[in-house]
Amino acid sequence: MALVNGNYLKLPEYFFFNDLEGKINAYKLLHPEAKLIRMGRGDVSQAIPEEAAKAMADAAKEMGVLETFRGYGPETGYKFLKDKIIKFDYNAYGIQLEQDEVFVSDGSKSDVGNIGHIFGRDNIIAITDPVYPVYENAAIMGGRSGHLADDGLWSNIVYLGCTAENGFKPALPQDHVDIIYLCYPNNPTGIALTKAELKKWVDYALDNQAIIIFDGAYCAYIREKDIPHSIYEIKGAKKCAIEIRSYSKTGGFTGLRCSYTIVPHELMGSTETGEDVEVNKLWNRRATTYYNGTSYIVQRGAEALYSKKGREQCRALTDYYLENCKIIRDEMTACGFEVYGGVNAPHLWIKTPGGRSSWRFFQEMLYELGVVCTPGAGFGNLGEGYFRFTGFNQREAILEAMERIRNWKGY
Amino acid sequence: MALVNGNYLKLPEYFFFNDLEGKINAYKLLHPEAKLIRMGRGDVSQAIPEEAAKAMADAAKEMGVLETFRGYGPETGYKFLKDKIIKFDYNAYGIQLEQDEVFVSDGSKSDVGNIGHIFGRDNIIAITDPVYPVYENAAIMGGRSGHLADDGLWSNIVYLGCTAENGFKPALPQDHVDIIYLCYPNNPTGIALTKAELKKWVDYALDNQAIIIFDGAYCAYIREKDIPHSIYEIKGAKKCAIEIRSYSKTGGFTGLRCSYTIVPHELMGSTETGEDVEVNKLWNRRATTYYNGTSYIVQRGAEALYSKKGREQCRALTDYYLENCKIIRDEMTACGFEVYGGVNAPHLWIKTPGGRSSWRFFQEMLYELGVVCTPGAGFGNLGEGYFRFTGFNQREAILEAMERIRNWKGY
Repeated sequence: MALVNGNYLKLPEYFFFNDLEGKINAYKLLHPEAKLIRMGRGDVSQAIPEEAAKAMADAAKEMGVLETFRGYGPETGYKFLKDKIIKFDYNAYGIQLEQDEVFVSDGSKSDVGNIGHIFGRDNIIAITDPVYPVYENAAIMGGRSGHLADDGLWSNIVYLGCTAENGFKPALPQDHVDIIYLCYPNNPTGIALTKAELKKWVDYALDNQAIIIFDGAYCAYIREKDIPHSIYEIKGAKKCAIEIRSYSKTGGFTGLRCSYTIVPHELMGSTETGEDVEVNKLWNRRATTYYNGTSYIVQRGAEALYSKKGREQCRALTDYYLENCKIIRDEMTACGFEVYGGVNAPHLWIKTPGGRSSWRFFQEMLYELGVVCTPGAGFGNLGEGYFRFTGFNQREAILEAMERIRNWKGY
Repeated sequence: MALVNGNYLKLPEYFFFNDLEGKINAYKLLHPEAKLIRMGRGDVSQAIPEEAAKAMADAAKEMGVLETFRGYGPETGYKFLKDKIIKFDYNAYGIQLEQDEVFVSDGSKSDVGNIGHIFGRDNIIAITDPVYPVYENAAIMGGRSGHLADDGLWSNIVYLGCTAENGFKPALPQDHVDIIYLCYPNNPTGIALTKAELKKWVDYALDNQAIIIFDGAYCAYIREKDIPHSIYEIKGAKKCAIEIRSYSKTGGFTGLRCSYTIVPHELMGSTETGEDVEVNKLWNRRATTYYNGTSYIVQRGAEALYSKKGREQCRALTDYYLENCKIIRDEMTACGFEVYGGVNAPHLWIKTPGGRSSWRFFQEMLYELGVVCTPGAGFGNLGEGYFRFTGFNQREAILEAMERIRNWKGY
């Protein structure tokens, strides 16, 4: 009988976010009249920039006409989009890249998950705690996690603790690790690293011949000076880092699916017998074997985000969500909550009042206010005692949620 | 230092299709004036159905308006598309499916490659020879192939030979295998299996508790009676088969990226300790962890292919390519070639004249006629001595290629 990949069976049968939806649905059944406000939402709420919608409508029409129809595109993305990525996302920050160092794909979730396939199973993986759950789940499903201990941690994963004490900026690993997943500006904590802080990680990686998988999905939200937009702003990073970017939160492309991954030629991995191998070649091989390119229409949409109007519209979009964050920060702080993030990121990380567990507080806020947060426990052990709000809802909904919290006597 | 996945290094550095492009480019440099005709092309040449182009232009506009904007869709596809798939592609053939047995994705190449991830590494894989190379490459990269022997075959892969003697319909495996990749109508041979012939495979799989990965990418080209459109037309197939379908050749979606995979609830795999596991749950887990859904715009395009006009336009498209195939069959046969396929599939499998090797014949046809075929050797050992033509080029180009071959004294 065909054997299944046993690593899949190590995953808890239902994940955290299914539980969350289950609890919300139970509440809705009991309170069909309630107007729920989802303050933990990970999805955007505003329309995509007009320029992108127009470009995609035009591209759709092109496909229906013989003279302008296009079949298979290049598996790693069209030159017209790669040119814009290199110019606006890298050259603008003093970084040079080749066309074949850029891999356009259908989403950073896919890339974050699939990138593990090009690496050996025996590498030691480090992730932050709290963390975006896909890094950990992909490590489990890929057979790299070891076993789940009683403390809720996987034996072969090194956890980099992020706490209020270290400003949610983890210390370097004490022991050797091979692959480090970093996401800055961070989901869920909303914290960004300065150049000096990120440099410590690049230096660690260079010293230890480790590879950093740098998830830069939220870089369009950076507003403060001295926060690097790309890890390649740090000297030497091309020798030790892969960077993954997304248009989901930059241009509201969550339903359209476009992202890209940078794998510099300078980045080397090792064979078991100690020879150097260009990681770029492996990722290229995966892309060309397991993928047939991102939809032409969507690539035209992404390209349009880089036009003058497109960039203005993206800026207006991220400004809107950041203004939402500011409202939440100010209101929640005024209500006495301890609030982190939301300045260079669309996420806010907030301490539950009175030491309550994050699930208990979630439940109270849901049942007493009809306001939904994401319990911090869903992001790892050290997420306990916190909850996540984001700035992604509509302004009116956020203002109403803030009013409900302001008038709340319960907490 | 981070270790790479050593299985990637087992792949030949350049693959066959890179070699092919290299040789074509060399010819172009030497003969800049030549008008090349690509008769081996795997990509379609005609515009997509008007209905789909219209639906996608509308969907693009929707995304630019707050009231109709959509963010993340369901990872496994929208209900509006799954409803159509179930009704037109399955109910119409007497097959019942649940919504959660249908997984919409961005391409059958992705699914064919990624499906291996949910299975254990120790399964014995069987593929046909000749074969679509992705099945073999994914097995190699996934660590299931063993080593490459001097005969060009991988030690842990069972090859099912397809020759003129067996009508390119392979015999059942002599030894036990766990996972069998079948593609019918077949690429590259253009051969289809009748119900009775496919039933033998389903019965084998049921008897041996094997799983069939059934690639049905070309089912829209079936014209003869008694050829099953879906493997689930065979009794018991839901207990032993996964079916992968694509809109690439059905609706000209090669540049748009949409396909789907069916994993019936009845299909079971086994843990190492012998317990049954629903394969559907594993594939669902992969889809929800490694994927964020297919572009909304493209799903609307695929949906439009099922409207009354859309179905007529798809039929006109596949009829056009099949008429091309008929022209090729008739002409090549009249020229004395031994021709297979092209009746229920857009591919034709043709014997090289005079026992020449497929590369030699490719080279001769390229340099003497400016006509490009795909050498059979690129599809496996038993592809040697054959070449592939397809019906995917424009009618005028195909007529011209046929004229060049008719007047060719060389072969």
